[in-house]
Amino acid sequence: MRPIHHLEDLDPGTTFVTDGYTLTTDEIFDFARRYDPQEFHLDEAAARAHPVFQGLSASGWHTASITMRLLTTTGPRLAGGVIGLGGEVTWPRPARPGDRLSVHGEVIERRASKSRADRGIVTLRCETRTDAGDVLQILIAKLMVFTRAAGATTGESA
Amino acid sequence: MRPIHHLEDLDPGTTFVTDGYTLTTDEIFDFARRYDPQEFHLDEAAARAHPVFQGLSASGWHTASITMRLLTTTGPRLAGGVIGLGGEVTWPRPARPGDRLSVHGEVIERRASKSRADRGIVTLRCETRTDAGDVLQILIAKLMVFTRAAGATTGESA
Repeated sequence: MRPIHHLEDLDPGTTFVTDGYTLTTDEIFDFARRYDPQEFHLDEAAARAHPVFQGLSASGWHTASITMRLLTTTGPRLAGGVIGLGGEVTWPRPARPGDRLSVHGEVIERRASKSRADRGIVTLRCETRTDAGDVLQILIAKLMVFTRAAGATTGESA
Repeated sequence: MRPIHHLEDLDPGTTFVTDGYTLTTDEIFDFARRYDPQEFHLDEAAARAHPVFQGLSASGWHTASITMRLLTTTGPRLAGGVIGLGGEVTWPRPARPGDRLSVHGEVIERRASKSRADRGIVTLRCETRTDAGDVLQILIAKLMVFTRAAGATTGESA
């Protein structure tokens, strides 16, 4: 079991790397049919003909969703879970079939709540990269993280 | 067929509203199993016991993905498609089973590319709301949009 991290543990400068996740053509089509049904995510010929994409690529929201999967399953285990308040996302280049994605994270800021002693906000910079080092997504995420004092309410005995 | 919008058509202040999309418990579980497998998105009892969520709710990335579906299927039809470069997202309150989501959009900025006459960047503010008017997500998205001059390369005759 991965150790639980509280607000106190997340010093700015702390870094981590998740496991990898290989993107398939079928998963690109499946996500796109549900949530981004544009022909350049659904049809290889249309994708090749598109002036920007020039080939099949995943929806940016698909890349974001895979990033969340990697964070929640193989990133730092946070007290109370990975609770996102929001963030800034950019997609420098789209994910392509066969890309193996992993998330390279760094704590860039930590702020205790002024009104509630049991929690605070951590700002995490997460780069989602291919094995070749291409950056597919940069996410600056604000997460709510509980302090050690909140232990009794966050089910940590589980 | 919805009319195609080019950069020239997207004056700041232009607004739109998409159709609605009703979120089910099964879809919350399905998305969470794939992309955000935390117990408070997968198990109703765990969700009720969570100090923040206090009941089943969708992953924020699920809300973002549904927003993209609504934008691409019933939002303004853009030349070349909805091509996101990135954005800022916040989730003021999570989406719950039975919520019917729709996207209320407004063009807040338009910028022609300095280097390429065939395109520009539009900044869109999109609120994803329930029928009761609760705001579930605010997304400030930067989209690449083609100009009329780019018509020949974006497959508009299709």
